[in-house]
Amino acid sequence: MKCRKCEAAAVIHMRQHKLALCRGHFLDWIPEQTQRAIDTYEMFPRDARILVAVSGGKDSLALWDVLLQLGYAADGLYIDTGIDEGIAYAQQSRLYAQQFADQHAVDLRIVDIPEEEGTSVAQAALITRRDPKKTCSVCGLTKRHAMNHIARTGRYDVIVTGHNLDDEAAVLFGNTLNWKKGYLVRQEPVLPATASGFARKAKPFCRLYEREIAAYAFLRGIAYMPEECPFAKGATSLFYKETLNRMETSRPGTKLSFYLSYLKAKSEGLFTARPEKDAPENACRLCGQPTFHDSLCAYCTLWERVRQALPSATEKKNSGSV
Amino acid sequence: MKCRKCEAAAVIHMRQHKLALCRGHFLDWIPEQTQRAIDTYEMFPRDARILVAVSGGKDSLALWDVLLQLGYAADGLYIDTGIDEGIAYAQQSRLYAQQFADQHAVDLRIVDIPEEEGTSVAQAALITRRDPKKTCSVCGLTKRHAMNHIARTGRYDVIVTGHNLDDEAAVLFGNTLNWKKGYLVRQEPVLPATASGFARKAKPFCRLYEREIAAYAFLRGIAYMPEECPFAKGATSLFYKETLNRMETSRPGTKLSFYLSYLKAKSEGLFTARPEKDAPENACRLCGQPTFHDSLCAYCTLWERVRQALPSATEKKNSGSV
Repeated sequence: MKCRKCEAAAVIHMRQHKLALCRGHFLDWIPEQTQRAIDTYEMFPRDARILVAVSGGKDSLALWDVLLQLGYAADGLYIDTGIDEGIAYAQQSRLYAQQFADQHAVDLRIVDIPEEEGTSVAQAALITRRDPKKTCSVCGLTKRHAMNHIARTGRYDVIVTGHNLDDEAAVLFGNTLNWKKGYLVRQEPVLPATASGFARKAKPFCRLYEREIAAYAFLRGIAYMPEECPFAKGATSLFYKETLNRMETSRPGTKLSFYLSYLKAKSEGLFTARPEKDAPENACRLCGQPTFHDSLCAYCTLWERVRQALPSATEKKNSGSV
Repeated sequence: MKCRKCEAAAVIHMRQHKLALCRGHFLDWIPEQTQRAIDTYEMFPRDARILVAVSGGKDSLALWDVLLQLGYAADGLYIDTGIDEGIAYAQQSRLYAQQFADQHAVDLRIVDIPEEEGTSVAQAALITRRDPKKTCSVCGLTKRHAMNHIARTGRYDVIVTGHNLDDEAAVLFGNTLNWKKGYLVRQEPVLPATASGFARKAKPFCRLYEREIAAYAFLRGIAYMPEECPFAKGATSLFYKETLNRMETSRPGTKLSFYLSYLKAKSEGLFTARPEKDAPENACRLCGQPTFHDSLCAYCTLWERVRQALPSATEKKNSGSV
C-alpha cells in the first residue's frame, strides 16, 4: 500500500480514515491532528504553561513529545505510586519518564507518594479498603490530588493527560452501559478550571486511536514502559476495550463515531444541565484543595486513615506534604 | 440444578436473576413477569381491548398466549408483506399465526399488502429505493401504518408487540453507539396515544430475554415460524445483538441493566425534553393518518410511487384501501 500523500510505501493504514501514510507523513500527521484537537476544543493557547501527567507509558510520553515538537512549553509530572508488585512497575516507569526528560532537556517534576505519605498506594488500598482490587480507585484519587496540587502551586495553566480515543471510548462505553448520569454529562476533551480550585484539564489525544499513538512512539524511537500496571489485569475497562475492539474490527470507525457523536449530541443539548455537585465550594481543612465534603477531602480522609494505621508515616507527613 | 421454588429439576437457569425454575414454575413466572411489566409501566388496564401484532414468530405468539392466559381480551393482527423470497416466508408465517388463532378460538385480523397495494414490500423497495436492502425500512413503515389503521378503525385501546429485551437492548445499543438524539429520547416500554391519531403502543416482553421466551414457547408447545425473515441476514441489528450476547456471556445481566438503567436515568431527567416533532399535527390527504409531512404521509407517498410504476395496482387500490 502506498502513502496517500507521496506514493512512498505506507507504514500504517488507518481504515477508519481510509488513509495510508508513509513514515514521514505519518510523523507529521500525528502532531497536526493533535493541534487540530487542541484548537477544536479550545484546550489551551499557544503560550500556555502546560503540565503533562507522565506515566512512563507510550501515550503520555508521545503526548509530551508531540507538544514539544509543536513548540509548547510543557513540563512533565511523574507521580510515583510505589506500586512495585512483581515487576517493579513504578520504579521502571519512573526511569522511562526521567530518561525522556533528560534526552529532551525538559523538566520532570516528581511526586513520590511512599516518600510523602509513608507507603505505596497498593498498601493504602489494603489498609483502608482491605482489598487489593481497590488499588485502582486509591491510585486515581491520589494521582488526581497530586496533579492538581502541582498544577496550582506551580502555576500551570493546564494539566494534560495522554488519554487516547480507546480510553475515552471505553470510559464512555462503561458509563453508557450503566447509564451513569453524573459521569455521562461530565466527560469532555477539556474541563475548565473552577473558581473553587480545580486546575484546567485537557486530553489532546482524545481523537487518536491507541494503535496510532503506539506507531508514533515506535517510529519516533520513544523508549517507554511496555508493561501494564499489575493491578490493571481483569479490569472492567479492559473488558470494555476488548468489546469495542471487536466492534472496530467488524466496523472500522466504530470507536471514533461513538465518541464524536456523543460529544456532538451533548453540545446540541441532549442532556439536561450538569448537576450542581460539579462545583464544590468547600476547601479541605488539611490540604486546602476543593472538596464536596465538609471538612477533609477524599484524599486527606484516606491518607489520614493510612497514617493512623502506620505510625511511622505520621512523622514523615509532619516534615513535608504533597 | 433444582427449582428455587419446589426442589424439582430445573428446566432453565437464568443467570442474570440467579434463578433456576422447574417447568411448572417457569410457566407461571413468565406471565407473572409480563403482568408486572404491564403494571410497572402502566401499559393498559385489565379491561383494555388489545391488538397483538403477530408475525408468526415465537415472541409475538408467546405474547398473545400469555395475554390470553392472563385473561385479557386480545385479538391478533397479521400483516402479510408478501415476502416470499426463497422460503415462502410470509406465507408460512401467516399459517402459524392462523393456526394459533384457530387453536385458541380467537380473532386474527389480516392485512394482505399485495392484495391491498398490488405487490409485496420487497417489490416496493426495489421500485422506490432501487435496493433490496431497503426492504426492512419499507416493511417497517408499512407495518406501522397498517397497525395504526387497524387499531383506529377497530377501536382498540392499545397495540402490543412482542419486542423482547434483546430487541430493545439492541435498538438502544445502536442508537447509543451513534448517539441518535431523536430515538434516544423516545424509546419507551409504552408510548401513549396522541391527539393527532397515533394509537397507544406497548411492549409487555421488554424485560424478558429472548432465550426465556423461546423456552416458554417450546414448553407451551406453541408452533411458530422458526426462520428469520430472508431480508434480516446481515442486518446491523444482528451485529448489535451478537455484541450484546458476547457481553452477556461474560457478564450475565448486561442487557437487562443496560436497558433498565437507561429507563431509570431517563425518568430521572437525564435528557432534555422530547422534540416538538413528536406531535405531528397534519392528517394525510389520502389515508387520514397523522404525519409530519404537509400533504401525504410517508406510507402513502411510497405506495403512490409504487402504483405509478405498476399500473395494474391502481385499479386494485381504487376498489378498497388499507
